[in-house]
Amino acid sequence: MKLSARNILKGTVKQLVTGAVNTEVTLEIAPGIEITSIITRASAEQLGLAEGKEAYAVIKSSNVMMAMD
Amino acid sequence: MKLSARNILKGTVKQLVTGAVNTEVTLEIAPGIEITSIITRASAEQLGLAEGKEAYAVIKSSNVMMAMD
Amino acid sequence: MKLSARNILKGTVKQLVTGAVNTEVTLEIAPGIEITSIITRASAEQLGLAEGKEAYAVIKSSNVMMAMD
Amino acid sequence: MKLSARNILKGTVKQLVTGAVNTEVTLEIAPGIEITSIITRASAEQLGLAEGKEAYAVIKSSNVMMAMD
Amino acid sequence: MKLSARNILKGTVKQLVTGAVNTEVTLEIAPGIEITSIITRASAEQLGLAEGKEAYAVIKSSNVMMAMD
Amino acid sequence: MKLSARNILKGTVKQLVTGAVNTEVTLEIAPGIEITSIITRASAEQLGLAEGKEAYAVIKSSNVMMAMD
Repeated sequence: MKLSARNILKGTVKQLVTGAVNTEVTLEIAPGIEITSIITRASAEQLGLAEGKEAYAVIKSSNVMMAMD
Repeated sequence: MKLSARNILKGTVKQLVTGAVNTEVTLEIAPGIEITSIITRASAEQLGLAEGKEAYAVIKSSNVMMAMD
Repeated sequence: MKLSARNILKGTVKQLVTGAVNTEVTLEIAPGIEITSIITRASAEQLGLAEGKEAYAVIKSSNVMMAMD
Repeated sequence: MKLSARNILKGTVKQLVTGAVNTEVTLEIAPGIEITSIITRASAEQLGLAEGKEAYAVIKSSNVMMAMD
Repeated sequence: MKLSARNILKGTVKQLVTGAVNTEVTLEIAPGIEITSIITRASAEQLGLAEGKEAYAVIKSSNVMMAMD
Repeated sequence: MKLSARNILKGTVKQLVTGAVNTEVTLEIAPGIEITSIITRASAEQLGLAEGKEAYAVIKSSNVMMAMD
């Protein structure tokens, strides 16, 4: 499936924190660069996410803000 | 200002595409890894974004989806 | 690619409205039920979206609000 | 109240999963077509959401991505 | 229609900026406190938004970040 | 850090509700006007949010819907 999302970043799952409804996923996309994602626990289980596995962070560009020093 | 956003990624502005209301920003956060952001044109001008400048992509973790092959 | 998004709705592209930065896509997912999406113009072109083509609307469940009468 | 959201989809609540902070709502909007929503538990209680009740999924079009096979 | 969105802020439309696809709306919700919204141009026209009219900003709480000095 | 977000609203933290993964924050931005935010519990702890402290709600304008009576 091809996605309209401009931001599809490949990485390795570093950590999973599981709650009643949501799971927090930490993905390392480059040495020292991590992305954190909150998805439903049901999604995390259906995807089969686990520490050490390869996965992608997918972000719609309208959800990316910019900042400057 | 300290932000609750878990994802604050530093990079260099590669390209700006400007419309009537919105601007599309491409930020290189590591060699070959780019993030695209859509912000209002007014924000882009107020921030002073320009090609070659350093900037940050800021993403709320609830706006990050996960995918697997 | 398997996605964490819980909402992946198949339909037929009914209309495309193109701006300088964004494109508005109308997708019919069932008779009389339409979903409208705003994506970047670059994404719409890369996907090859066109009226009459099959496509999917993908929505993260944290971006769905509920309402009642 | 009239909303700017382009996507207001009527359906029947099929399932509620309740956590400490959030509730996951599954809404059937057409036979076999379901939408999943994550809202705060407080919102779910204030709305009076319950299985079998009619409700609406409300989605801002900038939060809808597109995909193609 | 009752909404799950926790943030429904009443105000007066101060300014509209219209593009090909999107419209930027500035709403004054208290003296000196403004909220800016980007909605589709079609939505702005269907709602009948105009400077001086009363309207509401509606924000899902999962889309609100926090910051501290 | 300067942000592209158009909506940065100063207020006082009124209430924190903490779950396994997320925290719900209620911020009073003017007398009788409150904003509710859902952020990760880890973010709430790193920011040091506590009842009575000053904080900001930060909202990307593309995440603000409009409504009219």
